[in-house]
Amino acid sequence: MNVLIVFAHPEPRSLNASLRDVAVSELERLGHTVQVSDLYQQKWISEVSKADFPHLAADDRLRVADASGVAFEAGSLTDDVKNEHEKLLWADTVILQFPLWWYSMPAILKGWVDRVYAYGFAYGVGEHSARRWGDRFGEGVFAGKRAMLIVTAGGWESHYSARGINGPIDDLLFPINHGILYYPGFSVLPPFVAYRVDKVDEEGFASLAAALRVRMQQIEVTPPIAYRQQNGGDYLIPGMELRPGLGGERASGFALHVDDETKCGPLR
Amino acid sequence: MNVLIVFAHPEPRSLNASLRDVAVSELERLGHTVQVSDLYQQKWISEVSKADFPHLAADDRLRVADASGVAFEAGSLTDDVKNEHEKLLWADTVILQFPLWWYSMPAILKGWVDRVYAYGFAYGVGEHSARRWGDRFGEGVFAGKRAMLIVTAGGWESHYSARGINGPIDDLLFPINHGILYYPGFSVLPPFVAYRVDKVDEEGFASLAAALRVRMQQIEVTPPIAYRQQNGGDYLIPGMELRPGLGGERASGFALHVDDETKCGPLR
Repeated sequence: MNVLIVFAHPEPRSLNASLRDVAVSELERLGHTVQVSDLYQQKWISEVSKADFPHLAADDRLRVADASGVAFEAGSLTDDVKNEHEKLLWADTVILQFPLWWYSMPAILKGWVDRVYAYGFAYGVGEHSARRWGDRFGEGVFAGKRAMLIVTAGGWESHYSARGINGPIDDLLFPINHGILYYPGFSVLPPFVAYRVDKVDEEGFASLAAALRVRMQQIEVTPPIAYRQQNGGDYLIPGMELRPGLGGERASGFALHVDDETKCGPLR
Repeated sequence: MNVLIVFAHPEPRSLNASLRDVAVSELERLGHTVQVSDLYQQKWISEVSKADFPHLAADDRLRVADASGVAFEAGSLTDDVKNEHEKLLWADTVILQFPLWWYSMPAILKGWVDRVYAYGFAYGVGEHSARRWGDRFGEGVFAGKRAMLIVTAGGWESHYSARGINGPIDDLLFPINHGILYYPGFSVLPPFVAYRVDKVDEEGFASLAAALRVRMQQIEVTPPIAYRQQNGGDYLIPGMELRPGLGGERASGFALHVDDETKCGPLR
């Protein structure tokens, strides 16, 4: 299997980098081929700007989705973005690895998403009709591929629990897992999250590394989060609200979009 | 009143920029003083890196929180960051304005948060004991100030409704409103969100502008979202889980952290 790890930490001697090395060596030991996009090392440009779309004249107004679609279609996106497209298409599984900064990904990784997810590639694809609303949320360019997050957090696990003050970790990661990974078609595996990482000693690291190795060993068979397919009948089109009666007793919230009755999604 | 608008859109002729101008002129008409941090115009650097901490030697390992704390304490953070600190301390109200890209803020604004929110300034402050767990979630450097988001989204409002496929807009914005604004002490006003912005015609813009003017007129009296104060007795310390019995029938999720019985928070 081909695995792409998109890695976003500025320090090569960080806990994050050590965990990345554990993941890479375990995946390679299992016979997989691994590429790493080390965003800091690549000096990744974080900001979507006019420079991303060389076809625009100096006084053209930048309309991001339009410009992105034209440049993607014409093959005129910048090389750094096109290289990431190639890696994504090459990969069977994509891992995003990052420290949780202010309850989300570091800017450099958000900028990877903002710039790499071109219109016509990761969004704005497929038929929009009374029957379908584009290829998204379970369909799209990455359908058939798996994805997962490896996340480190400074806070305590209980602070991220169902009733923890930060909000449940699955809810905090929903905009990424559902909105960034599931949207263009990935089957999304449950995340690997390490807590209180500033306090990890050698023993703690050994235990984290062992747990991460197990996740890498199971990466081809771990059941994905059972997000509901947009065009699978659960949503009203075009309003895109969950059909009445679905979602059990929950009236609202992110958890509605996970199908509890399936328990696990299709294995891909 | 002093108002700081932190603005993150690459195009000066965008709908976002037009809405910003509406907000600025209405606030000034009401007698307020406004500063804008236009991040693209300022060529804001998005990536936290060693260059942020000039006291580190070339071969020092970068531990972000530690380095940030040392540099903040020594006054040796870079000038771009120190200028934003000054503006934040000057402001009575802070507005973050951005297009919703992939269910979150653009990288350049995330990079403003990552770099400006120094340790010792926006986090890592206050007593940690059996009684208090730092000055955060309702306390902190920005206590007594108000904050709100102005957000534009391409998608339909129903897609962001309680049962909409994207997830409810209040949940999607929770990591920002609660995790980035409430955490260091801001009283957080409900966001102003414009939907389907790619389809807005002149009439639609006039209507958005009118609604935004009303929000600006009410900015000093709008009741903040009634997030629960961390050290106010609702949370167990140090586990930081909501006390049993609070939160009504909801077992988990972001909504737990809003106090429905208060309906609105303290007016500041």
